[in-house]
Amino acid sequence: MAKIATLITDMFEDSEYTDPANAFNEAGHEVFSIEKKAGNQVKGKQGEAVVSIDYGIDDVNPNDFDALFLPGGFSPDLLRADNRFVEFSKAFMDAKKPVFAICHGPQLLISAKALEGRDATGFKSIRQDMEYAGAKYADKEVVVCQNQLVTSRTPDDIPAFNRESLKVLEQL
Amino acid sequence: MAKIATLITDMFEDSEYTDPANAFNEAGHEVFSIEKKAGNQVKGKQGEAVVSIDYGIDDVNPNDFDALFLPGGFSPDLLRADNRFVEFSKAFMDAKKPVFAICHGPQLLISAKALEGRDATGFKSIRQDMEYAGAKYADKEVVVCQNQLVTSRTPDDIPAFNRESLKVLEQL
Repeated sequence: MAKIATLITDMFEDSEYTDPANAFNEAGHEVFSIEKKAGNQVKGKQGEAVVSIDYGIDDVNPNDFDALFLPGGFSPDLLRADNRFVEFSKAFMDAKKPVFAICHGPQLLISAKALEGRDATGFKSIRQDMEYAGAKYADKEVVVCQNQLVTSRTPDDIPAFNRESLKVLEQL
Repeated sequence: MAKIATLITDMFEDSEYTDPANAFNEAGHEVFSIEKKAGNQVKGKQGEAVVSIDYGIDDVNPNDFDALFLPGGFSPDLLRADNRFVEFSKAFMDAKKPVFAICHGPQLLISAKALEGRDATGFKSIRQDMEYAGAKYADKEVVVCQNQLVTSRTPDDIPAFNRESLKVLEQL
């Protein structure tokens, strides 16, 4: 079963964290939330979900996790203002470990310069950013690139996002 | 005196709208707020400022304004999900009219593909996006490009942003 690192802070899109996290847990994987400091409570932008942070970013090593999950909302843009979260994301892409990014999640991968030549999707507001970053953007509910990078656009895409992310995890 | 179009919606960075708007008004210019629909009330992310919308985006023509102002916060990312705001921004850049963008304001210009080859700055989280978009990014409080495009990074830069924006307006 996989250990999945999740980068998350305030103003995440509530269901884009809770639904995939539940699906990962139900399949027997473990989801660990990472933000600035262990014990912090971060809140979703819809006011529905609160997440207790398991680890501070300075207390984790990408080598200790099997996969990376990047929920959307405004959380990814807030996180990438701090280079530690960008470097953490880059490590999973460099190591070709599974990365699951939905909505604005790919913003962290743009800042990590990790989308060049990759097939991907994301929320429509970041489409031009992703294309400039070298991604081959597809307006589809889910895009799986090289059996490693799974991306989706919006909360409506969550069932497809979960399905394809779980498939990638099964092959670990 | 200039007519300044302002694209703004919820979650704008309060002071990045109110301070420059006051400075523009005090210098005798007119600031018009534009969002989806006239009469809407949009709220700043700090909960300090509320702006009544003067015009709906379908009711305005870029030709009727002398300059464009793009305050930051999450407002620019929300707006650029709607292509009408991207096209409106593009028209000012194409016409070489003054454009004042602070913090996340340049996101609308990235989506308009209007930053290629331009000197500019912006909030640190969008730096890589701006560089991929072809901007020559400088980590300075204000960057003035071709006496037309004025950009700044954060609320701390507002005095420099106002000063240089007003200089550009004086030369109209």
